[in-house]
Amino acid sequence: MNKPKTHIFVCTSSRPNGQQKGHCHTKNGVEIMMKFVEEIEERELGGEVFVTNTGCFGICEKGPIVVVYPDNIWYGSVSVNDVEEIMEEHIEGGTPVKRLEI
Amino acid sequence: MNKPKTHIFVCTSSRPNGQQKGHCHTKNGVEIMMKFVEEIEERELGGEVFVTNTGCFGICEKGPIVVVYPDNIWYGSVSVNDVEEIMEEHIEGGTPVKRLEI
Repeated sequence: MNKPKTHIFVCTSSRPNGQQKGHCHTKNGVEIMMKFVEEIEERELGGEVFVTNTGCFGICEKGPIVVVYPDNIWYGSVSVNDVEEIMEEHIEGGTPVKRLEI
Repeated sequence: MNKPKTHIFVCTSSRPNGQQKGHCHTKNGVEIMMKFVEEIEERELGGEVFVTNTGCFGICEKGPIVVVYPDNIWYGSVSVNDVEEIMEEHIEGGTPVKRLEI
């Protein structure tokens, strides 16, 4: 299969019991994920950058959480407005956004 | 924060719209995830190996899907019975389980 060069995981507070409930969901986790989807499409990076919604990472107080692999970079308190900067600086530019790192 | 050495992502078909529905969910995605949680606890790897449930990876026909980062190893058609082998051979032993790779 065609593996991603970069894989962005966004917490949408999706619980394994089927509920979607929690801090990241309340704080626009779904909108953040959808903004990444949009940005990836606009930048035509669909073949190499994947985005996936997740359940809880266990650090809710630092949410909304975004994790980028294989870099192992963890972002906290992410807002929809931060997505463009993460895409520009980190995903395309290769330099993580320090101010959002946890 | 304490970042994981290895992060296991298990598709539980958690859709961003709050539904949990799809191939991996039907084929025991939740049970596979819970088995990883158990195995990590039993092996006392909680500090370095994380497991997180996810939404769809877009390759449903190959599911249930398990992805291991930062290794970028993708497993398909995973069953609950495969979890112990993945833990033993790959997560602890460092050698991915070839027969499950996609």
